[in-house]
Amino acid sequence: MIDALALARDLIRCRSVTPADDGAQAVLGAALEALGFAVHRLEQGSPPDGPIHNLFATIGEGAPHFAFAGHTDVVPVGDHKAWSVDPFAGTVADGQLVGRGANDMKSAIAAFVAAAERHVARGSPGTLSLIITGDEEGPATHGTADLLTWMAVRGFDPDACLVGEPTSNQLLGDMVKIGRRGSVNAWITVNGAQGHVAYPARADNPITRLVAILAELKARPLDNGTDWFQASNLEVTDINVGNPATNVIPARATARINIRFNDRQRGVELENWIRDTVERHAPSAEVIVKISGEAFLTPPGPLSDMVDFAVQRVTGRTPELSTTGGTSDARFIRSVCPVVEFGLVGSTMHQVDEMVPVADIAALTDIYDLVLQQFFKSGDAA
Amino acid sequence: MIDALALARDLIRCRSVTPADDGAQAVLGAALEALGFAVHRLEQGSPPDGPIHNLFATIGEGAPHFAFAGHTDVVPVGDHKAWSVDPFAGTVADGQLVGRGANDMKSAIAAFVAAAERHVARGSPGTLSLIITGDEEGPATHGTADLLTWMAVRGFDPDACLVGEPTSNQLLGDMVKIGRRGSVNAWITVNGAQGHVAYPARADNPITRLVAILAELKARPLDNGTDWFQASNLEVTDINVGNPATNVIPARATARINIRFNDRQRGVELENWIRDTVERHAPSAEVIVKISGEAFLTPPGPLSDMVDFAVQRVTGRTPELSTTGGTSDARFIRSVCPVVEFGLVGSTMHQVDEMVPVADIAALTDIYDLVLQQFFKSGDAA
Repeated sequence: MIDALALARDLIRCRSVTPADDGAQAVLGAALEALGFAVHRLEQGSPPDGPIHNLFATIGEGAPHFAFAGHTDVVPVGDHKAWSVDPFAGTVADGQLVGRGANDMKSAIAAFVAAAERHVARGSPGTLSLIITGDEEGPATHGTADLLTWMAVRGFDPDACLVGEPTSNQLLGDMVKIGRRGSVNAWITVNGAQGHVAYPARADNPITRLVAILAELKARPLDNGTDWFQASNLEVTDINVGNPATNVIPARATARINIRFNDRQRGVELENWIRDTVERHAPSAEVIVKISGEAFLTPPGPLSDMVDFAVQRVTGRTPELSTTGGTSDARFIRSVCPVVEFGLVGSTMHQVDEMVPVADIAALTDIYDLVLQQFFKSGDAA
Repeated sequence: MIDALALARDLIRCRSVTPADDGAQAVLGAALEALGFAVHRLEQGSPPDGPIHNLFATIGEGAPHFAFAGHTDVVPVGDHKAWSVDPFAGTVADGQLVGRGANDMKSAIAAFVAAAERHVARGSPGTLSLIITGDEEGPATHGTADLLTWMAVRGFDPDACLVGEPTSNQLLGDMVKIGRRGSVNAWITVNGAQGHVAYPARADNPITRLVAILAELKARPLDNGTDWFQASNLEVTDINVGNPATNVIPARATARINIRFNDRQRGVELENWIRDTVERHAPSAEVIVKISGEAFLTPPGPLSDMVDFAVQRVTGRTPELSTTGGTSDARFIRSVCPVVEFGLVGSTMHQVDEMVPVADIAALTDIYDLVLQQFFKSGDAA
């Protein structure tokens, strides 16, 4: 029998701070091979964004095909001295597993494997796979995206997928994510003409133009949200001028904005709106736009129903179906099959003393197992 | 006979980079004592803004009392290697006197002394004084302001004053300043609550508030100017956030604004307007306001007429009576008596290779002399 806690601790002991692997995928691969999985360990991408350690493991044949997805990389420990334990020791104390990756998301990967063991024991028809990347916390250029391409070429497209990110909010099972907003960043540099503040007519203050741009961008309501999404939202995340002189109009001003947007918006249209607005106020400004991901939604249906049922059965809670929060690798999987995200309580993720109740790992295993039981009984979740 | 060029060169050879004196006021005092002036050399103020070298010199008795005002300190040389000559050598080349202070304003002080010599020779009744500070280019806390207090206590208030700042624009005599705008700086710090950009409801973006404040401040026309003043004008001179993370709403945003204002505005009213505007958008913001000086005007009248006449007689030019440009020590003298400013062409002041045509120093001496002749003939200029 797989001990999910023990496997989670073994994974935490690998210092797989993105994009490092430090043996994490070997630990995972060995556990899966012991269950009979065919394990494909890949190194994808070239410098500077690669190579990235990715792992695809699959067992069984034909339809239906269910996949768990996740990542073995973790974020840096931050202030090492502020931790109460070694973040890479896999410490268990007071009923909590404490360490970097405890909830984001090595414990969920361990629960994948423990649930898979029960699935294998049942001898169900169809295919179960694990889609695991080592580059979710980094640029994600050669992570899940590349792995999905590799799978598609070999006919490994799943029919449904569950991403094990820590979606629970306060208590295990209180939130399932059925979509995510899109995200776009823009960097705006307005060039003016420096001069003495006493002679403004001889200068061209780039701050005047930049403030007008930002005020106009912020003033427009993008939408009112949808049944499943919050309203799209723009934030100015940085402005910098760096002019030490009180009597000088500066030559340049820069700002950065971020938009989190729902499926009523498209990244390219937001980009055009930003560019048009800047152009009207500052024709010579430089604008760099990067669309991190489009918004997507897996409308409530068979897959979310299965997760909802399993969560209620194990925890007694009715999960909220949510689309809040940041991006995840589900943005890549959405184009292949229905995808939902469900995992542990993420309140300490990315923080010092990241931790998860040991009991939640067992409960999560039970939930994942119940999802698999329903999926392979029904034959399809789409 | 005083050689104004030689005296200017001797003054430039003193490295009186503000607040240093390096013997400059001793050179000046010796020249004035030789003409019979009573010279008071003062050290005013305490650390950190003092002591400052100030000089008051006076000759004659009773009314009318005319004063020249100026400063012996200079701004730093800037990029020493970019100068074509030693900035403290007092070099004469191609008909130009080149050096730090050549036009701002050691040559004008030399012209004061040369004109004073002619005045003394005429034996006119009344009093002629020189009000000279070593802290015009610095904070000016213990410069002319302290010197005027010292003078007032001793009954030395003049009836009219000419400040010898370089007011000419392109050619000697093309501009006289009869007033100056006021200036106020404000530093605004908006404190928000840091958070993840994907969860804006859990954060409080200080940039949103700051942009709204700055847009509102900039949008209000302060006034349309007056017969003698340009419209008052606000510029945002700096904004800084310094947030490196694209997915983080920052905790703090700062900005600095400057207002150059005419005599339809008062500094304290502008301060209140700034504070009220900030308060409405960001109640917890911190605002620091510093009023550098109020606007003032010596309306065209006897004093400006004398300067106008003298300039026309010597240069053939009709000077524009202007109130443009930055602040000067005339802002302190205005409360004592009518004050105008007239001096050399300032196009190279504060720059590398600051220079002035040698011929202009002689012409300026003639102009100052003609002003004195008219003033002491008429008996008063107010």
